Amino acid sequence: MKLYNTTISGNCYKIRLLLSFLRLDYEKVNINLKAKDQKKVEFLALNPLGQVPVLEDHGIYLRDSQAILCYIAREYDVEQLWFPLEPMLMAHVLEWLFFANQNIASSLAAARAFYLVNKPHVQIEHATEQAYAVLEMMNQHLSEQDWLVGRRATLADIACYPYVAMAHQGKIELDQYPYVQAWLRRFEQLPNFIELNS
Amino acid sequence: MKLYNTTISGNCYKIRLLLSFLRLDYEKVNINLKAKDQKKVEFLALNPLGQVPVLEDHGIYLRDSQAILCYIAREYDVEQLWFPLEPMLMAHVLEWLFFANQNIASSLAAARAFYLVNKPHVQIEHATEQAYAVLEMMNQHLSEQDWLVGRRATLADIACYPYVAMAHQGKIELDQYPYVQAWLRRFEQLPNFIELNS
Repeated sequence: MKLYNTTISGNCYKIRLLLSFLRLDYEKVNINLKAKDQKKVEFLALNPLGQVPVLEDHGIYLRDSQAILCYIAREYDVEQLWFPLEPMLMAHVLEWLFFANQNIASSLAAARAFYLVNKPHVQIEHATEQAYAVLEMMNQHLSEQDWLVGRRATLADIACYPYVAMAHQGKIELDQYPYVQAWLRRFEQLPNFIELNS
Repeated sequence: MKLYNTTISGNCYKIRLLLSFLRLDYEKVNINLKAKDQKKVEFLALNPLGQVPVLEDHGIYLRDSQAILCYIAREYDVEQLWFPLEPMLMAHVLEWLFFANQNIASSLAAARAFYLVNKPHVQIEHATEQAYAVLEMMNQHLSEQDWLVGRRATLADIACYPYVAMAHQGKIELDQYPYVQAWLRRFEQLPNFIELNS
């Protein structure tokens, strides 16, 4: 497997986390976002959206961090623990993957991008307001269970972890969300957890 | 199955399309968005995001149109044709579900919401620009194949169809995208296809 990747991206971090949890070997290809490598013709041939991460496996290219998580889990997690096949459990995991893809992306991740890389088109007040709504909902959910779905960590937790853990970079405070904070610490105790920069 | 639903929503329409394609019986519960039924306490207990659609099955509630599509296909499509289990095919379907959930939602669907219901927080110029980028990418992809993934219609097509088909309601023109137009007509020829209002 080859991961087209950049260190700072929370979406790329999700993939590195799963690959580490599953102890899978892969090659990293670092994409220079400042040089706009992701918008160059060669990269657009891999992902017409011009975004990292992209995963290459068996000569096929996959875009979208959440779809890549599902692929790796389906293909390499022999016990299907990270992405359960049972229809209702799978759907609950997917609820959180779509939540990460839309609700977290447009709030916590957008606020981080606004402050870290001056991302245009971010309405920062709206993103901030939405970020606290996201945290409120997650806090309520995590007041009743240790993990987002079922009794162990799944792709749901991996997909939601990075941008919540990095909330402060978007000037979002976690003080009022003790269950979210406890969940972050729980996640960080998982065997083979890695930091963003590792 | 019970579908908490509203006619005008393209996201609810996705679910009705799949249920029709699979010839499944279900009960419709109509939610009055103008009366803000979806933000009332009783509904928030079903979906804390306060959005339709919500599906109830076996006494369990699911939110998110894309997650609901996956659930129904996993549970009721015995041949697994709409949501294939093979890891790479499944991942390709999911790429388009996340594309519908993020890229189409923030462009074509946002533009439609802006003009139909005066949705606040929509940056209409940005949504319009993104809508044409979405159509350009889909047109290129559909110039090489009849369906978004593989050789038959899948959840990918269902998830992307409604807001592309209703593009004109967001003042987005399809004239320059002949392969997208041909794909829309192809989709509408599927057995048991239904219109938005049916």
